[in-house]
Amino acid sequence: MKKNTDIQEYIDGILSGNISLVSRAITLVESTRPEHRELAQQIIDAIIPHSGKSFRLGITGVPGVGKSTFIESFGMQIIEKGFRLAVLAIDPSSQKSKGSILGDKTRMEKLSAHPAAFIRPSPSAGSLGGVARKTKETIIICEAAGFNYIIVETVGVGQSETAVQQLTDFFLLLMLAGAGDELQGIKRGIMEMADGMAITKADGSNIEKAKAARGEYARALHLFPPSESGFIPQVLTCSSVNNAGIEEVYNMIDAYHRHTISNDYFHKKREQQNQHWLHQTIDDMLKQRFYDHPEIRKTLLHLEQELSKNQISPYKAATELLKKFR
Amino acid sequence: MKKNTDIQEYIDGILSGNISLVSRAITLVESTRPEHRELAQQIIDAIIPHSGKSFRLGITGVPGVGKSTFIESFGMQIIEKGFRLAVLAIDPSSQKSKGSILGDKTRMEKLSAHPAAFIRPSPSAGSLGGVARKTKETIIICEAAGFNYIIVETVGVGQSETAVQQLTDFFLLLMLAGAGDELQGIKRGIMEMADGMAITKADGSNIEKAKAARGEYARALHLFPPSESGFIPQVLTCSSVNNAGIEEVYNMIDAYHRHTISNDYFHKKREQQNQHWLHQTIDDMLKQRFYDHPEIRKTLLHLEQELSKNQISPYKAATELLKKFR
Repeated sequence: MKKNTDIQEYIDGILSGNISLVSRAITLVESTRPEHRELAQQIIDAIIPHSGKSFRLGITGVPGVGKSTFIESFGMQIIEKGFRLAVLAIDPSSQKSKGSILGDKTRMEKLSAHPAAFIRPSPSAGSLGGVARKTKETIIICEAAGFNYIIVETVGVGQSETAVQQLTDFFLLLMLAGAGDELQGIKRGIMEMADGMAITKADGSNIEKAKAARGEYARALHLFPPSESGFIPQVLTCSSVNNAGIEEVYNMIDAYHRHTISNDYFHKKREQQNQHWLHQTIDDMLKQRFYDHPEIRKTLLHLEQELSKNQISPYKAATELLKKFR
Repeated sequence: MKKNTDIQEYIDGILSGNISLVSRAITLVESTRPEHRELAQQIIDAIIPHSGKSFRLGITGVPGVGKSTFIESFGMQIIEKGFRLAVLAIDPSSQKSKGSILGDKTRMEKLSAHPAAFIRPSPSAGSLGGVARKTKETIIICEAAGFNYIIVETVGVGQSETAVQQLTDFFLLLMLAGAGDELQGIKRGIMEMADGMAITKADGSNIEKAKAARGEYARALHLFPPSESGFIPQVLTCSSVNNAGIEEVYNMIDAYHRHTISNDYFHKKREQQNQHWLHQTIDDMLKQRFYDHPEIRKTLLHLEQELSKNQISPYKAATELLKKFR
């Protein structure tokens, strides 16, 4: 009986926007303990029909691009427009050394103190698949709690960008002026994934450089094949410290939102995303069962060596492993 | 006994460069009959230590870019340099309507008549995974038969580019001058996958346009994050009918080859590719077992509908399906 009361408490709390219960529910989602996972799943099941009514924005950029200060500035504007904002992060690498992003809320001083904003750092451990699943479920909880603007932040250096693109409606790439060393950290393919770009730190002596970079990137984006959304990606400049250009970034994203609602791409993409996560999860679970199998692990090591010596084809090796799996 | 003789005949034939036996071995690879697949697998097993000693070039571009005439012109140059050239194609979409690419050998008149060249159209049926596997095994057969320059052609409109990138050492993107409607057909992300680009049909009144396009693309490539190879992608112009610029394309690819041999990226990439195909094949096989399961298929249809109505989370749906799979 106690357990059921707990679930109902969570559900009612989330649906009434109780931040303390929202936080605790997310903690259950992030937990590795099976009984927590089970409880979280039951909560998600109950609230999922109340989710989905938000705009989901993915933001990426290399460390140093000024994501936190951008989100502080952009987020305050979102709130002034009447939205309730949740800021989440996805960063599977955070477990390694650097600590989770968004951990340092001091760079989001105003936002983290505002009652209409909810900031949650990245779950700090697990595979990309696991972290992405947790973020997806955290989005559901936030939406059910009435947050209608969701920002998912990631670091533009790894695999998590594809996950964020599959979690959000618009993918914003933040870039530094000057197309040199700043790009070293960013992963190939990310530019072409972006629905829009903003050159940050366009202030002081950096303004001209930012404008030039904007022109260059706009030309480059123009050379890209058109996106399925039918929306032509734009490049803007902005300054978080001066609060300049932030409104324009909002307008660009809003124009995309209205455009994709009107041509129904918005709903089509969300439907595709759900399908993607279904099949991605199946895939992850199948692989986990396979690679956790002790005999598979042993044989795999041996076959990888043969493969590396060009003594076996990848297909033969795979076939042999599959035979052991039943 | 007959079967073993056959296998030895195939093996000896391939290793001595007997084209007729090479062709028949590839037919076994492409066959859907289990006894052919089994025979093919045994042949591959025997010859695999003799494979790998080639340069593998992937070529893509939208229909109309002039791939066949480029390969005719480029291929003849390869042969003049003393290489033995095999031209393969990967095109899983060919089953649908258009017929397999490279089917029309008339556009490769000189090449298809040359004894140092071997041209093989795309296997005409199957999933991308299946077609890619067959192409990988065909490469092994060709290399064991002494072909030391392999071209794998694909059409730049689908998923097969990623497969080709995982099969080859250098990925060449052919583009038309003018960055307008020509790009409609090409898939996003392909430009950033390219190790080099060539603007085709740079002849007659098109020369200036091609030069301008080259400049634009070179600027765009410059904005991309650097490739792992450490090689800076170049953009060239060429004309297959005038045989102009073809030597430059060869030199670019050769420079890449020497560069990546010297920094050991060449071998590192091939090793990564083998690992990729091992895990990709495992993944494909696991999925096939799962999705071929009759009860899974039935439940999946039902769950996809619930998913689409926002009544269940993708993770819950996946978990339910996995429970049925044992």
